[in-house]
Amino acid sequence: AWISGTAVAASTPMVKWRLASSFPKSLDAIWNAAPQLAQRVAQLTDGKFDIRPFAAGEIVPGLQVADAVQNATVEVGHTAGYYYVGKDAAFAFDTTLPFGLTSRQQNAWIYSGGGLQLMREFFKTYNMTSFPGGNTGTQMGGWWRKELKSLADLKGLKVRIPGFGGKIMAALGAVPQTIAGGDIYPSLEKGTIDAAEWVGPYDDEKLGFQKVAKFYYYPGFWEPSAMLSFYVNLDAWNKLPKSYQVAFELAAAEVNLTMQAAYDAKNPAALGRLLKSGAQLRIFPRDLLDAAYLEAEKLYAEECKSNPRFRKIFESWNRFRSDQTNWFRVAENAMATYIPRTK
Amino acid sequence: AWISGTAVAASTPMVKWRLASSFPKSLDAIWNAAPQLAQRVAQLTDGKFDIRPFAAGEIVPGLQVADAVQNATVEVGHTAGYYYVGKDAAFAFDTTLPFGLTSRQQNAWIYSGGGLQLMREFFKTYNMTSFPGGNTGTQMGGWWRKELKSLADLKGLKVRIPGFGGKIMAALGAVPQTIAGGDIYPSLEKGTIDAAEWVGPYDDEKLGFQKVAKFYYYPGFWEPSAMLSFYVNLDAWNKLPKSYQVAFELAAAEVNLTMQAAYDAKNPAALGRLLKSGAQLRIFPRDLLDAAYLEAEKLYAEECKSNPRFRKIFESWNRFRSDQTNWFRVAENAMATYIPRTK
Repeated sequence: AWISGTAVAASTPMVKWRLASSFPKSLDAIWNAAPQLAQRVAQLTDGKFDIRPFAAGEIVPGLQVADAVQNATVEVGHTAGYYYVGKDAAFAFDTTLPFGLTSRQQNAWIYSGGGLQLMREFFKTYNMTSFPGGNTGTQMGGWWRKELKSLADLKGLKVRIPGFGGKIMAALGAVPQTIAGGDIYPSLEKGTIDAAEWVGPYDDEKLGFQKVAKFYYYPGFWEPSAMLSFYVNLDAWNKLPKSYQVAFELAAAEVNLTMQAAYDAKNPAALGRLLKSGAQLRIFPRDLLDAAYLEAEKLYAEECKSNPRFRKIFESWNRFRSDQTNWFRVAENAMATYIPRTK
Repeated sequence: AWISGTAVAASTPMVKWRLASSFPKSLDAIWNAAPQLAQRVAQLTDGKFDIRPFAAGEIVPGLQVADAVQNATVEVGHTAGYYYVGKDAAFAFDTTLPFGLTSRQQNAWIYSGGGLQLMREFFKTYNMTSFPGGNTGTQMGGWWRKELKSLADLKGLKVRIPGFGGKIMAALGAVPQTIAGGDIYPSLEKGTIDAAEWVGPYDDEKLGFQKVAKFYYYPGFWEPSAMLSFYVNLDAWNKLPKSYQVAFELAAAEVNLTMQAAYDAKNPAALGRLLKSGAQLRIFPRDLLDAAYLEAEKLYAEECKSNPRFRKIFESWNRFRSDQTNWFRVAENAMATYIPRTK
């Protein structure tokens, strides 16, 4: 009994990690990923693998989570790769790119299309490894004070939109703005900005944008889906017993699955309430979408020229995207867009 | 050390289960769910929770898996609820219904819309509990020897299609046939039947239907998605330590996520090969789809009248379906169906 007791104890050590989230607790559908992961890992290890989640700002600011993981300030972070495109544009493939993969297509690329291996190879240079950790689905195109009749109406508008989406807006004549979440509402109200994108109905509703910018545009073509990820410091990861590694991996997979389910379940009612309180749904003008698509392709071509890390991942991703688009146009889209003519 | 050794041993007993799958190993994308679940559960418990998977027919025939779980012939089965609509039509909600939920919508209903609770309440009367265990996505509408120009062309055709789909085909004038997988090819070749539905490109390709029935129709409106499930005998489940229950639950969640990803990743290339070898893609005629939709609604109304178990679940499912349809028509479908006009 003594020998078997020792053996078991050796394979189930007490491990304490800190998790830094890039998100505030008020974004509950995303924030919940962190406590859910911690709870599942604890249940699987009789509480011996103990992960303590911290919201944005409690240990490090939300946009410095990857650095904190790389530097081992925390062992794990819950964040979105595209926050770090300033370090390297290749981070974006871990979240989304304009006119890129939907939520299901991103999962297909990541789990069965070689995407996860490519991303982990890239993250290794930051002393991190990664686990998909949730998705929002296709985001909305944000809140606009004036209606857009065509691409020309975009000229000169100040739009709160970060990353690749911002670059495309700039190429199309708008002026992208970087504004933290809490400052968006007053900026829209005063007219300091003309539009702001956030997430989708469930999250947008909490900020009340419809009161100051009633046109609610779709689709958010710069985020056909948005995958969140858990980044783990490689040294901390390599020290884990195999069973703890699998516990972490499966807990993350559950988060990846159930966050999308939660968003899909919550968005319809939130959209209904927004429409009741005055929001007006609009689809982006066709010429705006087509011009944005061309600008996105240009950005990718330019980035591929100067950045071999981006190019390597892009080649896998782009081929996969093209195959997925062709396939989804068949059974899946035909079913999803079928509207019975029965009246 | 002796005391701690005993304590650990008590909470991690050796448990051996047998898993009966409804599927042959040749349907590898679905069959794989069973060994994947077994491997993950073993990794999480240092091999102490040992699940041995058996293919269809090795312990019981594929269509008797639920009975085997109920009777404790095996502790767990991997199967599709709609195989058991002969016992009770309510089983179908666990897999799919005509013009029902897509894969993402099914997950949303199951995990965040009260669906899993409703299904488990129902399965309790069969001494089972359930865990979502994979999805195929929207299926294809099968292989047809002749082109369908309109609903009228369906009259008298012998179509291999089971379940609710078969009932709808009958109402539309076709003659549904029940034929086991291995007999479909010769029946199509001889012209004993005029059409047969199976799954989608990746699985269909293996059976070579395009050689004997070249028109490949979509969408398979009777299966907008098809969720597979693990059914577990309730007595066996209740005897598990909590950490083994969580291990099983998370391993099943991973299967549910990654099977859909594998199908999405594999279907495009398979469809490409099928088209090269002579398959001709066709969408079902509009009047056929609309008539089928009406028949589906009629079937549900009739079933609700006579079956209170069906009605209870239908009310949740139908409300959810309507909300999902409205929401997916906005950002998600606009993005998924966007085709750039850039030439």
